[in-house]
Amino acid sequence: MASYGGVDLGGTKIQAVVVDGAHNVLGSSRHPTPTGGGPQDVAGAIEAAVRESAAAAGVASAQLAGIGVGSPGTIDGASVSGARNLPGWDGTFALADVLERALGVPVALGNDVQVATRAEHVLGAAREFRSLLGVFWGTGVGGGLILDGRPWTGRGGAGEIGHTVVKVGGARCTCGRRGCLEAYAGRAAMEGHVKKMVEKGRKTDLFRLMKERERTRLTSGVWAHALEQRDKLARELIDRAVAALGTGIASAVNLLDVEAVIIGGGLGVRLGEDYVRRIAEEMQPHLFLDYRPPQVRLTELDDLGGALGAALLAGTGVDGSLRQSGARHPVARP
Amino acid sequence: MASYGGVDLGGTKIQAVVVDGAHNVLGSSRHPTPTGGGPQDVAGAIEAAVRESAAAAGVASAQLAGIGVGSPGTIDGASVSGARNLPGWDGTFALADVLERALGVPVALGNDVQVATRAEHVLGAAREFRSLLGVFWGTGVGGGLILDGRPWTGRGGAGEIGHTVVKVGGARCTCGRRGCLEAYAGRAAMEGHVKKMVEKGRKTDLFRLMKERERTRLTSGVWAHALEQRDKLARELIDRAVAALGTGIASAVNLLDVEAVIIGGGLGVRLGEDYVRRIAEEMQPHLFLDYRPPQVRLTELDDLGGALGAALLAGTGVDGSLRQSGARHPVARP
Repeated sequence: MASYGGVDLGGTKIQAVVVDGAHNVLGSSRHPTPTGGGPQDVAGAIEAAVRESAAAAGVASAQLAGIGVGSPGTIDGASVSGARNLPGWDGTFALADVLERALGVPVALGNDVQVATRAEHVLGAAREFRSLLGVFWGTGVGGGLILDGRPWTGRGGAGEIGHTVVKVGGARCTCGRRGCLEAYAGRAAMEGHVKKMVEKGRKTDLFRLMKERERTRLTSGVWAHALEQRDKLARELIDRAVAALGTGIASAVNLLDVEAVIIGGGLGVRLGEDYVRRIAEEMQPHLFLDYRPPQVRLTELDDLGGALGAALLAGTGVDGSLRQSGARHPVARP
Repeated sequence: MASYGGVDLGGTKIQAVVVDGAHNVLGSSRHPTPTGGGPQDVAGAIEAAVRESAAAAGVASAQLAGIGVGSPGTIDGASVSGARNLPGWDGTFALADVLERALGVPVALGNDVQVATRAEHVLGAAREFRSLLGVFWGTGVGGGLILDGRPWTGRGGAGEIGHTVVKVGGARCTCGRRGCLEAYAGRAAMEGHVKKMVEKGRKTDLFRLMKERERTRLTSGVWAHALEQRDKLARELIDRAVAALGTGIASAVNLLDVEAVIIGGGLGVRLGEDYVRRIAEEMQPHLFLDYRPPQVRLTELDDLGGALGAALLAGTGVDGSLRQSGARHPVARP
């Protein structure tokens, strides 16, 4: 039976898996993402993670039938551009070609969030739906679309639900614009907001909890802990984030009328079912067809979703049409 | 050569055409939409318009190979629900069945805006694109989607870009919610806003121009005239509408990354190319991938777009797959 590699390339870690055609994980490996250097160094770390996961699976990496990589940034064919969470990756880098030469195996690229959405569709929480929006609530707010059973990537950059404007002239976003959903709900933007509030004299235990956990950022775990301890500022900001998510997701549902919304990401998974219900409640008043809201669910695949979805890019036989229409361009073009 | 009927069912008029397989208009007829009675009366007026346009084309209506109807409201198979612009149509009415019995010809239903979007894709301003968003700026703000060359209707209710929330807690919309794009850009909402401003003592020539034109509403023509006369309030409200359109459309583009946006509708067509350019300019600061905005264009088919698009629903041979996957459910389901 053929085996396939899948790589989830994140800002902090590189998760690789090797799976068989039935998506069983045969081996896996995790490396920290290089924090210095450039794309070539990141490619080297990916290569190492793939080789290790193949070894763990008992296959030579050159024997893999294909490798898929889910990457941040904009995917255009074999290249990744503007992956700002990765070191020195403001420009364009031919990641697929470099990995193909290094590993001797065909490599397909996909957007990390899109790939994780597809994993939930094929293997996870959204198996029975033909259309869905995946919302990954973490450092930023990413989105992925499955329409009529297939990934929708537009011209390669679809899914940026985090940059839905929910309030004209509103809060400053990490992208530099104003009023984006991510400006209210993204962990990075929320941390910036907390700092400003503290400078203005507001009290919070968030930074004390951060230090106790030996973190340098307000991680999902820190936020969850602060909520459990009824930290007032944490609750206010999470409430604001949930309201913004409900608004932005409802607008997307009004436009697309998908069957389901799947909530994942660091904060989504950490805060769990209760918050998925709260997001659904916040969507409700903004839904145009409010008598039949979409199903709103938590992701099921958690940490491995991105890597499993990336392996699907390499063509694990679930959806032959995806591969035939070009795994690098998951949506067929004229 | 087979001929087909197409009907654009609007709040004020019913436009019927008969076309050949190459979309040439062989005959047409226009009736006012009944203002009283109920769905059965509207169906009667549609029947009369179809018979007249067939007579003008020199064919018996029973010889048409099929008839398509573009309707407001929610389309579910052979029924139309909640078409609030039409008399007594709050509930569900089996329009396709009633027309099939009356005319002896298969009838397919589609959403009016979706159908007009498809007409622009097949015959009009968006012929060279595989993905586009149609935005119809008139009494309300309607949207239609073509993705990967085919209409996307979701669960039957997709395209409600007018109910994208552009400002949480913002202006009251005609749908009862707050902050929708339509609350700022829809002609009905704008007229309500003008009235409030006048009550508060603001001056405007809008209502004087309305009376000169013997209108009972602030029509697109009245707005255009007021703009030409540099009416200050009219300019303010149109500027606000254009800004809201730019914001809402940019959010949709961030999510879907379509190749093109087509602007139509009463106000869109009346204000024309200059305002299409202004909408594109207002989109720009909100576009996530701002270095490659979509093409933004004016519709080409004007008044007949809806009826020509409806005729496409009846299967004029351009896209066999649409018909095979069920003209009544343009997007294939599992």
